[in-house]
Amino acid sequence: MVKKIDVIEVGPRDGFQNLAEYLPIEKKLEMIDGLIDAGVRHMQITSFVHPKAIPQMKDAKEVATACLTKHPDLDLFALIPNFRGAQTAVEVGMKKVANVISLSVSHNKANINRTHDESFAELEKIKNECKDLDVCLDVATAFGCPFEGKYRDAEPLLAFLKRAWDLGLTTFNLCDTVGVADPAQVRFFLKAAKETFPRARFEVHIHDTRNMGIVNTLAAIEAGADGVQATLGGLGGCPFAPGASGNTATEDLVLMLNEMGYDCGIDFRRLLALAKHEYETVKGNYSGHNIHIQAKTACCG
Amino acid sequence: MVKKIDVIEVGPRDGFQNLAEYLPIEKKLEMIDGLIDAGVRHMQITSFVHPKAIPQMKDAKEVATACLTKHPDLDLFALIPNFRGAQTAVEVGMKKVANVISLSVSHNKANINRTHDESFAELEKIKNECKDLDVCLDVATAFGCPFEGKYRDAEPLLAFLKRAWDLGLTTFNLCDTVGVADPAQVRFFLKAAKETFPRARFEVHIHDTRNMGIVNTLAAIEAGADGVQATLGGLGGCPFAPGASGNTATEDLVLMLNEMGYDCGIDFRRLLALAKHEYETVKGNYSGHNIHIQAKTACCG
Repeated sequence: MVKKIDVIEVGPRDGFQNLAEYLPIEKKLEMIDGLIDAGVRHMQITSFVHPKAIPQMKDAKEVATACLTKHPDLDLFALIPNFRGAQTAVEVGMKKVANVISLSVSHNKANINRTHDESFAELEKIKNECKDLDVCLDVATAFGCPFEGKYRDAEPLLAFLKRAWDLGLTTFNLCDTVGVADPAQVRFFLKAAKETFPRARFEVHIHDTRNMGIVNTLAAIEAGADGVQATLGGLGGCPFAPGASGNTATEDLVLMLNEMGYDCGIDFRRLLALAKHEYETVKGNYSGHNIHIQAKTACCG
Repeated sequence: MVKKIDVIEVGPRDGFQNLAEYLPIEKKLEMIDGLIDAGVRHMQITSFVHPKAIPQMKDAKEVATACLTKHPDLDLFALIPNFRGAQTAVEVGMKKVANVISLSVSHNKANINRTHDESFAELEKIKNECKDLDVCLDVATAFGCPFEGKYRDAEPLLAFLKRAWDLGLTTFNLCDTVGVADPAQVRFFLKAAKETFPRARFEVHIHDTRNMGIVNTLAAIEAGADGVQATLGGLGGCPFAPGASGNTATEDLVLMLNEMGYDCGIDFRRLLALAKHEYETVKGNYSGHNIHIQAKTACCG
């Protein structure tokens, strides 16, 4: 029996935002088109964030408009930090956004300068005023945080999810923002979350800081995650989380899933060629740690 | 309940043999002592191979004598390609060796220039003439080979193990020599092997060519492996297998196992410090591919 899993490419947001210099929109669109050509159907294409906060994303509206026009039937979405971002998404005709709130109070303050109450009030406003927008919740630092350490207990996460569930959200993306999770923890948290919210959809976003990106992603899939996020070449990081490093590399993940008999609809060889092209395009322009973009999977006999 | 697993360091053999220049014996012994100080209790310390084949191992007898004298109670062993290597092991008072035979006929020819019949005849001679030597079998290319591709069926492996079992061997180390395995295959092969030989001891030796070193190693542990091999800093390769790359990095593996509640008796922070020291010692002197020795795990919050 073929097992299905949604591989969600988030490099155009989480990868590109870690480039030191502005990457011209033509290059961004070329990478996005290349990913779609390789079979990617779910992609976070940009972030509707203030250009002062992340100058790389100053072309967010243009990127979104170009992609939504060219690929109207794909699951292309954006990250939004606030209501204003949601408004922009609606303006450009985007159907889905991911609003990010950190489970860690201190990381939430560092990342978006809000308390939990302020963030959930904003989320409620987005839900109420953007009725046609599909809003997902990115739970940043779901497994641990650079300031508060690793979470061993699932209760704070479940209480956090409850607040969002009560606002009508049904898709939760558990983010290992700095890469502190281990497979046992991922299974434990995923199972607890799924048991508590059996009708919710769960995704994970795993950073590869400690070389557990692939193993944690597989742990999440086998614990019942519906989708897993990754970035081409493993690009990534978090501008506001000390020590955060790149993400799980999409090409590594797709190779493993294909070999294991999963159907993710992505052509590994095209993806690998694109990872190498990305490397040539962005090398020397990457400010993240521990870039994995050397395309380890180069020799695939 | 604490789960136990033997982490077997093989860097002094599989790592050092991929150095381009001779590493002085003092440096080798310093690394071996450092590993033992960090808690390593199982280590492949050298290879009794002809120095023309692998000049790096020309000091094998001296390394073995020094280590066995200093650490008589630890599980320190050597790789041997043939009967002559076994004789040397006996000479220096070593109690255990790993004899390597490739499941792939073509790789066995490339690696040790023997047919399967010739290799098993040699193994029988070793067993018969070195009665006090504990002989394990390293099954090279157990999951696939650069010449024959990936094995999907466990039958050839089981038939191969049967030949060794019938000679009295009870410890089998399944080697993913070029890094083609995936977690589903590792589980499938391990389970088949354990069901067929329930009284045997199984280990794995997984190369990280396609970034599946950690996930395959965990798959093996959870499928019942008794021991897992790794190399400090991920050093490694195979001089006679095109495309082979480094091994699973011991420090990454130990961090994951410690975080998951396994007892492997190794201090992660000491190991990480040693990996960094190793990097300084061997950088510029490494001929393997895809060196992982950047110590990704550097930031451990």
